[in-house]
Amino acid sequence: MLTRRVAGPAQQVGLAIWARAAGTLAPPRNTEFALLQDSDLAVFDSILGSGGVITDPHEVDPYNRDWMGKYRGRGRCVLRPRSTAQVSALLRHCSARRLAVVPQGGNTGLVGGSVPVHDEVVLSTGLMTTLLGFDPGSGALTAQAGAVLATLEAAARERGHAMPLDLGASGSCAIGGNVATNAGGIRLLRHGPLHGSVLGLEVVLAGGQVLDLLSSLRKDNTGYDLKQLFIGSEGTLGVITAVAIQCPAASPATSLAYLAVPSFKAAQQAHGVLQAARQNLGELLSAFEFLDRESLEVAKQFLPGARDPLPGSDTVIPYTAQAPFFLVVEIAGSSEQHNAAMLEAFLESTMGEGRVLDGVVAQDSRQAGEIWALREGITEALRHRGAIYKYDLSFRVEEMYGVVGAARERLASAYPSGFLGGGAGSTAGSDTEHALKVVGYGHLGDGNVHLNISAPRYDAGLEALIEPWVYEFTAAHSGSISAEHGLGRMKAPCIGYSKPPEAVRLMRSIKAAFDPQGILNPYKVLPPE
Amino acid sequence: MLTRRVAGPAQQVGLAIWARAAGTLAPPRNTEFALLQDSDLAVFDSILGSGGVITDPHEVDPYNRDWMGKYRGRGRCVLRPRSTAQVSALLRHCSARRLAVVPQGGNTGLVGGSVPVHDEVVLSTGLMTTLLGFDPGSGALTAQAGAVLATLEAAARERGHAMPLDLGASGSCAIGGNVATNAGGIRLLRHGPLHGSVLGLEVVLAGGQVLDLLSSLRKDNTGYDLKQLFIGSEGTLGVITAVAIQCPAASPATSLAYLAVPSFKAAQQAHGVLQAARQNLGELLSAFEFLDRESLEVAKQFLPGARDPLPGSDTVIPYTAQAPFFLVVEIAGSSEQHNAAMLEAFLESTMGEGRVLDGVVAQDSRQAGEIWALREGITEALRHRGAIYKYDLSFRVEEMYGVVGAARERLASAYPSGFLGGGAGSTAGSDTEHALKVVGYGHLGDGNVHLNISAPRYDAGLEALIEPWVYEFTAAHSGSISAEHGLGRMKAPCIGYSKPPEAVRLMRSIKAAFDPQGILNPYKVLPPE
Repeated sequence: MLTRRVAGPAQQVGLAIWARAAGTLAPPRNTEFALLQDSDLAVFDSILGSGGVITDPHEVDPYNRDWMGKYRGRGRCVLRPRSTAQVSALLRHCSARRLAVVPQGGNTGLVGGSVPVHDEVVLSTGLMTTLLGFDPGSGALTAQAGAVLATLEAAARERGHAMPLDLGASGSCAIGGNVATNAGGIRLLRHGPLHGSVLGLEVVLAGGQVLDLLSSLRKDNTGYDLKQLFIGSEGTLGVITAVAIQCPAASPATSLAYLAVPSFKAAQQAHGVLQAARQNLGELLSAFEFLDRESLEVAKQFLPGARDPLPGSDTVIPYTAQAPFFLVVEIAGSSEQHNAAMLEAFLESTMGEGRVLDGVVAQDSRQAGEIWALREGITEALRHRGAIYKYDLSFRVEEMYGVVGAARERLASAYPSGFLGGGAGSTAGSDTEHALKVVGYGHLGDGNVHLNISAPRYDAGLEALIEPWVYEFTAAHSGSISAEHGLGRMKAPCIGYSKPPEAVRLMRSIKAAFDPQGILNPYKVLPPE
Repeated sequence: MLTRRVAGPAQQVGLAIWARAAGTLAPPRNTEFALLQDSDLAVFDSILGSGGVITDPHEVDPYNRDWMGKYRGRGRCVLRPRSTAQVSALLRHCSARRLAVVPQGGNTGLVGGSVPVHDEVVLSTGLMTTLLGFDPGSGALTAQAGAVLATLEAAARERGHAMPLDLGASGSCAIGGNVATNAGGIRLLRHGPLHGSVLGLEVVLAGGQVLDLLSSLRKDNTGYDLKQLFIGSEGTLGVITAVAIQCPAASPATSLAYLAVPSFKAAQQAHGVLQAARQNLGELLSAFEFLDRESLEVAKQFLPGARDPLPGSDTVIPYTAQAPFFLVVEIAGSSEQHNAAMLEAFLESTMGEGRVLDGVVAQDSRQAGEIWALREGITEALRHRGAIYKYDLSFRVEEMYGVVGAARERLASAYPSGFLGGGAGSTAGSDTEHALKVVGYGHLGDGNVHLNISAPRYDAGLEALIEPWVYEFTAAHSGSISAEHGLGRMKAPCIGYSKPPEAVRLMRSIKAAFDPQGILNPYKVLPPE
């Protein structure tokens, strides 16, 4: 049986593959930052007490490595505060000494944003996991920044509500990290981005000042909405220590359909399945995800226990075995009966017109869980396959899959006889350990495609073929080079593909106002000047 | 028959009442700003051409006066650009000359934010009304900043979508002004705040630089989300020239109930009507508004054609005539039949338990329109009654009505024999033109109460009784002194009641980075240093 959630940073990848490629080369260390001294460790010890400071290299190691095995820093210590006051005292010291700091939540980020680049001190929120409050009148939940998303989801569910976001890493990602990276995920379609759901934040600024914006009011229009700046700032403007967030009422009835469609166009075109879902399912629609056949094949091969929800050979409609695209459509409402009637009408209309080849409706929560595990497990499956180049892009819905085909063509022509002898690009059903695989999946309803290029190892030549081409392609199609993952270390130098110089100039002035010494998460988000 | 929408700034109030009271006294003019010269007008003329510059005092006058007749500036000219390039050229000149500028949309604001305080130049977006695009794949609508909300709503409806916000002033307010003030309104309960719905903005900075953030992508995580700063900045950081906004699919079936409840507590308490609505109506719930009896009486008296939806004397349940509170509960979904079944179950459960005294369900859109006109017309009705002290506050839902009772007590004890001989406070059914009336209504589902104190004229003694008491009361109950109206001129000095000094310090540094000379909407939002 599949587990729905991916494992956290503690679980190790089988392949030990470290980046030596161009784009993952570290920018030079900023020599204005101080070097960590034993006297600093003594101060940290005095602030945090026993167990609060980790310096054993073996224990520090996982905090230096990102989830993909792509980025690795060489921080010498990890700070584990339990309170906002401790975070404040730590940053006051780091600021006075000009020690660079990387805030780290669950370390599940995908752009190298949460690990050191050089010798930055890691400030982990791993011990700050307290649920601070829940207001049943409004659904406002307040928690320390290190609380794990799935734990908060369970707490909200117990109280008849749900968290407004969900993502594959929910078993290990922390709410503070979610907010700092403006995480998206599968519920954004229904509940909107965190910019609309986060009610309040408590943040410690670089100098140790505590900025108390931890209101749990739904509405507050008193001056510039500063908390918005921290949402998506990836720890570069302040360390989020607590979050208040609006939890919608939980829907008692959820239904899930898994559909095979003949083309991407059938999924999204003007009168396609998405449009039909928006019109027929309306307020019930809670997720509209897609995966291509290549994603399905990787998931089937590398996720233990994964099962094809539409195994072509076992059905009377064998052509679904070669269907190129699959959709996961979830609805959530107040009544099982109403859900069923609406879903049936939607399926009848789309299947009748040939926009859907075949489909299955989950009969219970176990089946629904299996389908979700497949969709959400693609990231994990790709990690097991080897190195991954991940591009989290957004486009107009109509155009969002074009980049996947273009990447396949580009790689196939660059490696006509295969990469390391394996087949270039990818075709359904064929997979050798040496082959490149180009897969596309993601949040169709939000125009967000995850382009993943899976390779046996990280390779400078391969990376140079993909970057900056993929960013140029995205900019040429008016897309965003980071839909939900952020810029981190990986895309900081590429911000210009999605933001004009005037915006970057204003971002720099904000960074300078909030963190004048630049000690918070250096080398990330903003490009070198 | 009532019209749903209130009239715009062109319609004049019968009572010509100008503020001489303490809180509405103007702060001193900043002498660093230049005085307008004829040579400036010549430059403006050359940029805007014929009809673009208004200098006739009679024509300029409405741009100098706010909707309530409370604030009046003495700007000498109004600029009416048609394009972003013109806005840029105008601000380049104003910046070079250090001329202060007030951006103005529909001039429907309620905190004196959109009119000059002294001789600032008014920059009106009244001619920038073009619908720039609509993406049927995503529901993204893009328009120039001066487009009127109701016009955009009609455009979205034609395309099967709806605007994510609606408010009483929709017939005259402009989308740019909505965004600049972070307008809330009756749909926030369902669709969340503008921080989650606005996809992109085009903004002209104080120096004339055009900041192009006009993406219509649903997701974009490339750097700090600068557009968020302009949402709610009330024209002090830049002039919004275009807006891209996410329009949800329109719900084909809408139902409306108007309910009389025995107490505010019955409406909101742990097992009250709001909780029941959240649980039973779930995803269908689209508005949950309230008005007190005093609001109802003012609306009935001053709105032409207003009709009491539950006229107690005509019914078999006469006690509703004295019911102290009324709720407007709207649901919007895909199916009339499902709506009806859900609403019936909800009403049965709440009426059976005595939480609702009586109720009526609108039988058609005309009846629904009448109920909405009553609720949304309270602001207009109060204006016809005379002077209004408006306080737009938010609290925890449970506590939100306390301030209304406390204000009544305070005024009744201050004026035991009545204000100008009229009865102090207010009681249902009694109204003399000299009496103070304290009314409360608003967005119950969002914890947002509109406390309005209606008086025959603006009066310094009366104002001194209310302010700062009302802000102290709000701060003591962890509320916000501005839920959705903004700070403007009225509450700029009071920001400290809702925001800590560290936040105000950061706001000042942002203002300095975006508008170093402070020429954009001076004397607003931030308190004098």
